Amino acid sequence: MLSFENDYSEGAHPQVLKALSDTNLVQQPGYGEDEYCLRAKEKIRECCQCPDADIYFLVGGTQTNAVVIDALLSGTEGVVAAETGHVAVHEAGAIEYTGHKVLTLPERDGKIRAEDLEAFLSSFFADSTCAHMVYPGAVYISHPTEYGSLYSLKELEALKRVCSSFGLPLFLDGARLGYGLASLSADVALMDLCRLCDAFYIGGTKVGALCGEAVVFPHGAPKRFFTHVKQHGALLAKGRLLGVQFDALFTDGLYFQLSRHAIEMAEYMKQGFAKRGFAFFRVSPTNQQFVILENGLLRRLEKRVRFSFWQPYDGERSVVRFATSWATRPEDVDALMALLDGI
Amino acid sequence: MLSFENDYSEGAHPQVLKALSDTNLVQQPGYGEDEYCLRAKEKIRECCQCPDADIYFLVGGTQTNAVVIDALLSGTEGVVAAETGHVAVHEAGAIEYTGHKVLTLPERDGKIRAEDLEAFLSSFFADSTCAHMVYPGAVYISHPTEYGSLYSLKELEALKRVCSSFGLPLFLDGARLGYGLASLSADVALMDLCRLCDAFYIGGTKVGALCGEAVVFPHGAPKRFFTHVKQHGALLAKGRLLGVQFDALFTDGLYFQLSRHAIEMAEYMKQGFAKRGFAFFRVSPTNQQFVILENGLLRRLEKRVRFSFWQPYDGERSVVRFATSWATRPEDVDALMALLDGI
Amino acid sequence: MLSFENDYSEGAHPQVLKALSDTNLVQQPGYGEDEYCLRAKEKIRECCQCPDADIYFLVGGTQTNAVVIDALLSGTEGVVAAETGHVAVHEAGAIEYTGHKVLTLPERDGKIRAEDLEAFLSSFFADSTCAHMVYPGAVYISHPTEYGSLYSLKELEALKRVCSSFGLPLFLDGARLGYGLASLSADVALMDLCRLCDAFYIGGTKVGALCGEAVVFPHGAPKRFFTHVKQHGALLAKGRLLGVQFDALFTDGLYFQLSRHAIEMAEYMKQGFAKRGFAFFRVSPTNQQFVILENGLLRRLEKRVRFSFWQPYDGERSVVRFATSWATRPEDVDALMALLDGI
Amino acid sequence: MLSFENDYSEGAHPQVLKALSDTNLVQQPGYGEDEYCLRAKEKIRECCQCPDADIYFLVGGTQTNAVVIDALLSGTEGVVAAETGHVAVHEAGAIEYTGHKVLTLPERDGKIRAEDLEAFLSSFFADSTCAHMVYPGAVYISHPTEYGSLYSLKELEALKRVCSSFGLPLFLDGARLGYGLASLSADVALMDLCRLCDAFYIGGTKVGALCGEAVVFPHGAPKRFFTHVKQHGALLAKGRLLGVQFDALFTDGLYFQLSRHAIEMAEYMKQGFAKRGFAFFRVSPTNQQFVILENGLLRRLEKRVRFSFWQPYDGERSVVRFATSWATRPEDVDALMALLDGI
Repeated sequence: MLSFENDYSEGAHPQVLKALSDTNLVQQPGYGEDEYCLRAKEKIRECCQCPDADIYFLVGGTQTNAVVIDALLSGTEGVVAAETGHVAVHEAGAIEYTGHKVLTLPERDGKIRAEDLEAFLSSFFADSTCAHMVYPGAVYISHPTEYGSLYSLKELEALKRVCSSFGLPLFLDGARLGYGLASLSADVALMDLCRLCDAFYIGGTKVGALCGEAVVFPHGAPKRFFTHVKQHGALLAKGRLLGVQFDALFTDGLYFQLSRHAIEMAEYMKQGFAKRGFAFFRVSPTNQQFVILENGLLRRLEKRVRFSFWQPYDGERSVVRFATSWATRPEDVDALMALLDGI
Repeated sequence: MLSFENDYSEGAHPQVLKALSDTNLVQQPGYGEDEYCLRAKEKIRECCQCPDADIYFLVGGTQTNAVVIDALLSGTEGVVAAETGHVAVHEAGAIEYTGHKVLTLPERDGKIRAEDLEAFLSSFFADSTCAHMVYPGAVYISHPTEYGSLYSLKELEALKRVCSSFGLPLFLDGARLGYGLASLSADVALMDLCRLCDAFYIGGTKVGALCGEAVVFPHGAPKRFFTHVKQHGALLAKGRLLGVQFDALFTDGLYFQLSRHAIEMAEYMKQGFAKRGFAFFRVSPTNQQFVILENGLLRRLEKRVRFSFWQPYDGERSVVRFATSWATRPEDVDALMALLDGI
Repeated sequence: MLSFENDYSEGAHPQVLKALSDTNLVQQPGYGEDEYCLRAKEKIRECCQCPDADIYFLVGGTQTNAVVIDALLSGTEGVVAAETGHVAVHEAGAIEYTGHKVLTLPERDGKIRAEDLEAFLSSFFADSTCAHMVYPGAVYISHPTEYGSLYSLKELEALKRVCSSFGLPLFLDGARLGYGLASLSADVALMDLCRLCDAFYIGGTKVGALCGEAVVFPHGAPKRFFTHVKQHGALLAKGRLLGVQFDALFTDGLYFQLSRHAIEMAEYMKQGFAKRGFAFFRVSPTNQQFVILENGLLRRLEKRVRFSFWQPYDGERSVVRFATSWATRPEDVDALMALLDGI
Repeated sequence: MLSFENDYSEGAHPQVLKALSDTNLVQQPGYGEDEYCLRAKEKIRECCQCPDADIYFLVGGTQTNAVVIDALLSGTEGVVAAETGHVAVHEAGAIEYTGHKVLTLPERDGKIRAEDLEAFLSSFFADSTCAHMVYPGAVYISHPTEYGSLYSLKELEALKRVCSSFGLPLFLDGARLGYGLASLSADVALMDLCRLCDAFYIGGTKVGALCGEAVVFPHGAPKRFFTHVKQHGALLAKGRLLGVQFDALFTDGLYFQLSRHAIEMAEYMKQGFAKRGFAFFRVSPTNQQFVILENGLLRRLEKRVRFSFWQPYDGERSVVRFATSWATRPEDVDALMALLDGI
């Protein structure tokens, strides 16, 4: 059955698989000390124009969020996030499990606004009872957000200014970063992230890898980050599995090429929906599209194609998500549109 | 450079890689709901002759130990382990990080003895102040152990009897289980583990997979184990990565075939060492061999071949480990012996 | 300086102190096994008409919340609370420190409503992705709330119905319970709490004791609760300190007498404010009164009397809290009113 | 019944109780901001000749150990302790509950030796795999130890040298510090502790207070220690309860006077045992005496006097503990000896 359910329905891009095959029998040290990891880190540093960045490869998004946030915070601190942030909602309490509170701010199109952050922080530190509360210790944002939206460079700079003035590190969840960088409306590049974030990650799982997230610390990693990773059960014996994949993704711009393809497919799909008069729940410039469907149509459609139910819209309509990926073909979008026409 | 450093120096067995390629573009649901996971679980259940077992795929050993032990224990409980157990020493405190103490018993050839366990538990529960201490809540053993040794069926049954009489689950770390099952002196089979353990895992990472451990709960998994996995950051979006690999490993007995090969290579290497008069630190019936080397020889040798330093033996000698794996070739062992002869 | 800052500005009621003196040299076992603890528990059980209740004495409110909630929840669960609940805001993340999320609901006069709770729980369990989220595992309410308000019997019964239908324990923070029971508008008695709650506590610190909270589990305590208490560092060697105090408080109705006195003083103060035309931020039937003051007046007043700043009301006015206690004298209220008249 | 069960069988020294009465109705701010806390801190600083020390009052020993150790350690670190250390054995896993491992060293008369510590630390940091293990992050000792023994000044200085050379803070559990300072064989004074420790506490609960431990950080407290205390549920609303008691204990040398009395009683009791030919399990210079009793005598004796069973000695004898305190009277010791003579 045709699927637009998410951007992790297939395995890896064939060139990633090929790299795994090509390197398979070369003996390498474990735990990320292999030459593929070293090479991939070098390529990422170059691509970011950030020669001093510390880079670590982790396996998945929730794991990366928990390990990085826990390492950034001290014991009395929590992380600030949008109320719709992945860490606040969909990670089974992975952050709280590490002993830290997620301090939520209202979301605006899935994002937090610099003025809301500033108001929260100012009021927190002005409160004479603040020592009885959880100190904000880092700021988490996702880019693209859980609603597919993007921070503009201006928004990001404004957030950074607020973070800096309160001494808080800014951490960007880039589980779908490729799709954010390749978006037609993107004005934020990898170099900007190096300048504006204290930690961010380049998502592999959802952009062509079997698994893997590359965490970049432009100004250096937290102390003993390697041991933090181990302690969280996030260290691979065969670290090469991640190194080889990111090496392939950052060779000849593959990562960006795959991302652009998914965006092209999303735009093509968007046009198809628009042409047919469907309303969008939110305008998304990335690979996730949130469409409002009448419930009867939804029920007929889900027998023919896979997509994600997002939330009720009103008594008669629902918000659903259609996602494209590096693996989506134009004919898949055409097939979806044909289904919509014939249902 | 020739390497006997460990059993995770290469990628995956070619048939595992091939399975990843063959299934690569088939769209599947995420989070382990894919058909490959389902199929692999079915094959493992069959192989264990345990049709009701709950099976979960996790990524690596430390992660599996932490997630399973945390799910088995309640808040006031700790896990009993040998003082040399992996969870007690080499996991950067991953168990303590989940809030639970590791309660250590003396090791005998890397194992814990039923009589020591019984003495400890009897004395604990007889102590009128035991409510001021950490309650033993589960027993952890590794098989093969960190020293390559194996529990006999009789030893395992004795441990189980003690566990049962105190109501404690028995958890077996099988990171290298294949090599234990294929050992020439093995008298414990998968079915025995299903009968005697409450949880155990079939290690993939060190036996032919890129990554992955198959956790088997013969009598059912702890409540909401899926959410535990997610909370620990151990859930893969592309759960298929693990399903496909275990499906391949449990097709036509590949897992057992790879394991036997490593054992054959280890026996061949063992003979080579013995013939040359080297002493063994411990007699290991599995794929890890612990050899005593004079320090001068060690330093000359480590320039030509990779192996693991284990511990000092005395002022002039050291214990080192040579490991074979599914990927070790007879000519590699020959080359090692030639080196020893010529050095 | 005159103080209405809170209800813990003095030491203990003289009869409590006297009981400490009277029993001082009697030798008793430690850790709450003394005869005073036993006797106090018996009196509380009788007062609650709940002969089978398990009772434990802890030292303070935040500690009690953390220990009880942690013991009620399993690993994948969080506690539901009002967004203004003490556990959600003013405990420095003590709940998250135990690894559990606080799941917040909107507050209505400081309370959560049964319909909001039901809607949240229904929608949670109806969500097909709920296994990726924190499971609601217990419900926390405070009575009186952080705004001095009280649940009616009807509201409490409605909450209990919802909790029961979802199998969740209901936990009531009674740090100021005495003032809630003695309120002129109270229709909830101790017996009702035994019927409707799975755990609640009778606050001592704020109602006449030096320290101490009596936790009541009408249907039995969580397994090994004693060890939980110890593990959290909440077990007193001299448990008698708490036993003697609660024994005194529950002798001849002292606890209720002290509570009634504070309420009388609060009502007297309330009349004084109302007569002088001050507006109340919320109508509180208990010992905390929230008054709106013009900021200039606030600044003049705080030089003469201690009270608590609560929150800004608008650009020119603020909400402040005046609290009475068992120790407040009518002449203190008169003095406050005289100050207001003369300022 | 006569009791030598422990040093917390009574309430508080009468002067401590009197101070609570005398100050009872004075209104004070909460959370340790009261004048009694401030005054007590000033007196302790003076007594320690350490004018810059940060001082906090906590409620009990296990709580203090957990809060201080957690604040001293970073995420990847554990605390080094003797295998018999209170934190390693009798605190229900309170340290592990905070996520940190207790790394144990062999005990010598209840103490750790500088050479053992140095050997452990050297070997740890020399181990090329140490990043896979828990880093030692602080050293915990108790003084007197769990066996009543004391560190000599020389031993303490040696430990400090090792700690300093590895950059680890030294933390001394002084739950019974008074009895250590007053011992006839003591050569360590408060000033020495300020010079040699990074944190230590002056136990109140076991030396004349109802509850309370005064934590001294000679070189300053860990960042946001107040919030750490709150987060652990260890902050008293009526912080005055602790301030008043320590103020009394440090007025006119009461703390030292009480301690000396307990030591005199212990020496008197020791002579009584020795005169009657009883053997000591360990020679203790403080208020806990460990005597070897024949099991038949033990059973007869325990019907007439309370003491603590410590551990079996051999098949026919046991080790038991008799403790004196500030409250022990010479006639109590005489009565015990009369019992021994007549039994």
